[in-house]
Amino acid sequence: MERPRHQGMAKNTYMRWRLPLVCLLWEVAMIVLFGVFVRFGPEADAHWEEEKQKENITSDIENDFYFRYPSFQDVHVMIFVGFGFLMMFLKRYGFGAVGFNFLLAAFGIQWALLMQGWFHSFENGKILIGVENLINADFCVGSVCIAFGAILGKTSPIQLLVMTLFQVTLFAVNEYILLNLLHVKDAGGSMTIHTFGAYFGLTVTCILYRPNLEQSKDKQGSVYHSDLFAMIGTLYLWMYWPSFNSAVSEHGDAQHRAAINTYCSLAACVLTTMAFSSMLQKKGKLDMVHIQNATLAGGVAVGTSAEMMLTPYGALIVGFISGIVSTVGYVYLTPFLESRLHIQDTCGIHNLHGMPGLIGGIVGAITAAAATEDVYGKEGFIKAFDFTGPYQTRTPSVQGGFQAAGIVVSLLMAFAGGALVGAILKLPIWGDASDENCFEDDIYWEVPEDEESDVYHMHNPDKPASP
Amino acid sequence: MERPRHQGMAKNTYMRWRLPLVCLLWEVAMIVLFGVFVRFGPEADAHWEEEKQKENITSDIENDFYFRYPSFQDVHVMIFVGFGFLMMFLKRYGFGAVGFNFLLAAFGIQWALLMQGWFHSFENGKILIGVENLINADFCVGSVCIAFGAILGKTSPIQLLVMTLFQVTLFAVNEYILLNLLHVKDAGGSMTIHTFGAYFGLTVTCILYRPNLEQSKDKQGSVYHSDLFAMIGTLYLWMYWPSFNSAVSEHGDAQHRAAINTYCSLAACVLTTMAFSSMLQKKGKLDMVHIQNATLAGGVAVGTSAEMMLTPYGALIVGFISGIVSTVGYVYLTPFLESRLHIQDTCGIHNLHGMPGLIGGIVGAITAAAATEDVYGKEGFIKAFDFTGPYQTRTPSVQGGFQAAGIVVSLLMAFAGGALVGAILKLPIWGDASDENCFEDDIYWEVPEDEESDVYHMHNPDKPASP
Amino acid sequence: MERPRHQGMAKNTYMRWRLPLVCLLWEVAMIVLFGVFVRFGPEADAHWEEEKQKENITSDIENDFYFRYPSFQDVHVMIFVGFGFLMMFLKRYGFGAVGFNFLLAAFGIQWALLMQGWFHSFENGKILIGVENLINADFCVGSVCIAFGAILGKTSPIQLLVMTLFQVTLFAVNEYILLNLLHVKDAGGSMTIHTFGAYFGLTVTCILYRPNLEQSKDKQGSVYHSDLFAMIGTLYLWMYWPSFNSAVSEHGDAQHRAAINTYCSLAACVLTTMAFSSMLQKKGKLDMVHIQNATLAGGVAVGTSAEMMLTPYGALIVGFISGIVSTVGYVYLTPFLESRLHIQDTCGIHNLHGMPGLIGGIVGAITAAAATEDVYGKEGFIKAFDFTGPYQTRTPSVQGGFQAAGIVVSLLMAFAGGALVGAILKLPIWGDASDENCFEDDIYWEVPEDEESDVYHMHNPDKPASP
Repeated sequence: MERPRHQGMAKNTYMRWRLPLVCLLWEVAMIVLFGVFVRFGPEADAHWEEEKQKENITSDIENDFYFRYPSFQDVHVMIFVGFGFLMMFLKRYGFGAVGFNFLLAAFGIQWALLMQGWFHSFENGKILIGVENLINADFCVGSVCIAFGAILGKTSPIQLLVMTLFQVTLFAVNEYILLNLLHVKDAGGSMTIHTFGAYFGLTVTCILYRPNLEQSKDKQGSVYHSDLFAMIGTLYLWMYWPSFNSAVSEHGDAQHRAAINTYCSLAACVLTTMAFSSMLQKKGKLDMVHIQNATLAGGVAVGTSAEMMLTPYGALIVGFISGIVSTVGYVYLTPFLESRLHIQDTCGIHNLHGMPGLIGGIVGAITAAAATEDVYGKEGFIKAFDFTGPYQTRTPSVQGGFQAAGIVVSLLMAFAGGALVGAILKLPIWGDASDENCFEDDIYWEVPEDEESDVYHMHNPDKPASP
Repeated sequence: MERPRHQGMAKNTYMRWRLPLVCLLWEVAMIVLFGVFVRFGPEADAHWEEEKQKENITSDIENDFYFRYPSFQDVHVMIFVGFGFLMMFLKRYGFGAVGFNFLLAAFGIQWALLMQGWFHSFENGKILIGVENLINADFCVGSVCIAFGAILGKTSPIQLLVMTLFQVTLFAVNEYILLNLLHVKDAGGSMTIHTFGAYFGLTVTCILYRPNLEQSKDKQGSVYHSDLFAMIGTLYLWMYWPSFNSAVSEHGDAQHRAAINTYCSLAACVLTTMAFSSMLQKKGKLDMVHIQNATLAGGVAVGTSAEMMLTPYGALIVGFISGIVSTVGYVYLTPFLESRLHIQDTCGIHNLHGMPGLIGGIVGAITAAAATEDVYGKEGFIKAFDFTGPYQTRTPSVQGGFQAAGIVVSLLMAFAGGALVGAILKLPIWGDASDENCFEDDIYWEVPEDEESDVYHMHNPDKPASP
Repeated sequence: MERPRHQGMAKNTYMRWRLPLVCLLWEVAMIVLFGVFVRFGPEADAHWEEEKQKENITSDIENDFYFRYPSFQDVHVMIFVGFGFLMMFLKRYGFGAVGFNFLLAAFGIQWALLMQGWFHSFENGKILIGVENLINADFCVGSVCIAFGAILGKTSPIQLLVMTLFQVTLFAVNEYILLNLLHVKDAGGSMTIHTFGAYFGLTVTCILYRPNLEQSKDKQGSVYHSDLFAMIGTLYLWMYWPSFNSAVSEHGDAQHRAAINTYCSLAACVLTTMAFSSMLQKKGKLDMVHIQNATLAGGVAVGTSAEMMLTPYGALIVGFISGIVSTVGYVYLTPFLESRLHIQDTCGIHNLHGMPGLIGGIVGAITAAAATEDVYGKEGFIKAFDFTGPYQTRTPSVQGGFQAAGIVVSLLMAFAGGALVGAILKLPIWGDASDENCFEDDIYWEVPEDEESDVYHMHNPDKPASP
């Protein structure tokens, strides 16, 4: 079971007391804070019977649960299976990919319910939660999963929990600035989730730069089966992305429209990804890295504009472009970032979430700026951009400007937050592995000793092939 | 393809006539019984057009289908993919895990539609079914899948079909006693599904005790890939558990609340599972067995109380505790049960369903006993516990007592039923494997002979490694 | 990474310029055509606020999105994960199975939105799309995925894109003839999707007959893990089939009924498949090929009649029969078709979609012919068969006749279309592999060179089996 070569490591990756301590401490904190602050929202509270009468609601089907729960479950699958399995492509890091993603997301959604609750659902000293809060918590954690992609295989579970704590906090602040102060629309989170998450993670990985990572190079690739597992993640992200982008849109036509736009963008993205994957390779063969990742860029890039009147052909164009940008990024930009800027981006999140996120923000700004009452209808126009109350007089072009400002704010928050968190994670107390032990499950996991695992441990030649 | 050492076995595992006979006989019986008894319920019948007018229903969206179908599909995935893949962790029993689970569940849902129909949906000599019946049938089969976990790898498909027949029958009786006679609430089935299913299965496996099972010990572990397949099962169970616990709750706030409580409990459970998995292992490494199973205990343990006003922090506490109990159970209790009580529990269902199910029953009893009109609202209080008709005068503390009685009844039914079924399955006519051939697919399955399977058949040393 | 033996092949499989060209050309065509023709339907357009007032719709929940979106997502999973993973059973063709399925489906849904849009959603020069169009586009592509099953492993991605272009076109024409001209009911597509798709694919594979395919025979089987991956596909198809057959049925009881009928049929099908799989094998062992495929025949065979008053026991009978027919087909018919009729059917689509599709058409015709006002209710009868307008006077028996005509038309379209497309694909310009390189990923994919892949490259004997 144990391979002695890991015992005498320079770095202490022993988790026995540190990991339980952090997990238990934080869970106890959650319980206390939930006890003080979190209660059921009106539509989940048993008092809803009275509420219904007061509000003249005649049917239980009007409960927000029925508008959003199916989308919530799709988003939930994306966070836990989508991200978890997508990151399973590494040959010896499957347990870490799916297991640590599980851990950080399970903690993150709790902390996100609190942070987002304080900003958005706080009434009379209580956070009132419903299904929309669950979706937003999953969204928030999505940005942590994205950042995890950059540092995959190079961090300890404790570092991930620390990062989650900070990133969720900063996410909620950034989201508040965008949605409430700038009054920006970003239903699918091109800015709040993808741009923020990606550049946050890239900043963290840059600070945690490992100069001798090439010692783990042999483990940084995939094997046949790990690529197939990763495709499970890819496909669930791809299929459910229409739910992701429509999950918190306004009831009715906005949700409907967001799903259609996303469906179209993703479809186009697959074709340009395949085209460029083949074109950029001397032998013309397709590369699974591109198929696993760049095919999803179309979903990221319509995140902001999906609920707007982007129109299906507009969505196709966005998908077309983002598939190309993402694939080209994998081929040319990722090696450049690593060699020149010391950004070691395990999953290539810059190509999947960074650049497409920026495209998404820009497309959103343009689409908002181009909105007219003619296209949306008088009421639809006001509803789509929520031009009510203090924002009654805002014009589309001003909205476009604020949307663009949202991109800048997200980037600044990501860089500043990532630098802060990177510095904290650099402290030598978190139990991360040494450079030659990265991308290796058996640092933190009991890996079954068996026939098959021999295949994985071939660099230990004096071990007999089968016991 | 064939390895001769299985040919001369003491036990006859030849299925050719027995398995087809049982399958066909039972399916014919289903057809006859369905023909006599089962018809569409009013909301699935073409007469619904008239029904709508009679009932003054103005929109098709009021059809129960739209309230419950998304949850039904999630539950459906849990039964077939969730349980099927969770049990795939064994290195050489993947076909059996997913295939036999498929077989018993497909039969079980048909028989459950009948059994539960006679008890709950019987009108004028006909069982009238709708989407809620499908969910309940899946639930019922869930308890069989749980029991299957205890005997995984040690029984023939015929034994599983026989067990399904009896267990579904007993499940329906027990459920009737609890829900109708004791008027107990148990939407997520902590008692009816988990406690009953687990202790039923444990009793069966105790009676089927195999003294020489250590001869199969080398096959009772996992390999790297089988653990990854099992995580598919884990995650789908984990993600969709909010749907499981809310699927048959009352329309509106109850479904909404059940989903939120379950979401919270499961999130907390992941953190304490990880903490204790690391803490209880000398080297501090995480154990996939715990991650695959104990992370789900939080869903089991809020099964009864999820639709009640447990509150989110209450749910966190339940998840916190059940993750600990379950993980500790895997480390200390399972070996004890096997060595002292002769309970060979392949999947550790006692830790995942048994103890958490009991916790769920108890939490449900306490939550019910603590209910007040203040917390639920006057109408909400009556609706939540269905304190109408003959139960108009029941008080929360009395309800709590009945809830507790429900646990006891479920346990007694499980022990008695399990003993009966165990005795039947012990008959030497069902074609189960000998002790040294347990946990091995190629007893009952055509296993592809190929390069890779050599890896699995390493105990056949005179076969060359590759042809 | 590269094995030189592929370089000097007789056939040129070099994709570098051809594949990108086709992908980009077709995607640009889609953008142009979408730009000219496709707009949001009224329920997805921002003008819906006004539409609601005009139509007196009081709640957003009446938007078709909430009736159909959960089913749409289930269908979406079936197309991309269901078909993609089901075809992953081949030991060395996992990338191609899931990746090419992804490619052709992503292109196909765009082209289907246009083709079906022109026939069914064309108003004032624009195609107005909503969630129902997305479902129908997925359905249409489903028929291409089926045909792909027959030629799996033997065609280049360009051939698949060409086939998709033609097959989607012909599908839309055939669908228009059936649904609009013959006024046939076929909600689950037994005729339009399965019969058409299967016989189309069989005709294509017959024309592309490869006389020396036995040179790839060693690669045409499965390995242990590839069978487990395939079961993911099987189960998602099986579980979500009730959504497939109900997705585009009328709101209310019809959707409800279609789901129940399909659930019942599929359950019965599993038992007869298991029975015959064991019975038809000398050693009585179960064969994963049957479990992966024939268990699904029950869903195909109730495709047409699911929304009718087939009744649950009727559905059981259909499932019972189709499981037997399909399994027997795998054992006896597939070898016969290959040796006598030169139909090399990689996935056995004739057994899973061909014969069950015909059964489905016939059962639909019979069920329609047997319909009475008594069984459906007066209004339900008219609604179920849409006996309004020009069809006001059509009787059930006439409807049954038209249903039967629908089968014949679908078959003729499949044979004619398949012959045409087969002839086109036979042109020596599409880059398909030579006979000895079929069923092999590394013709078109970068396959990771690693420890494990050695297992796959055993035909390279001078490379040591393990270092």
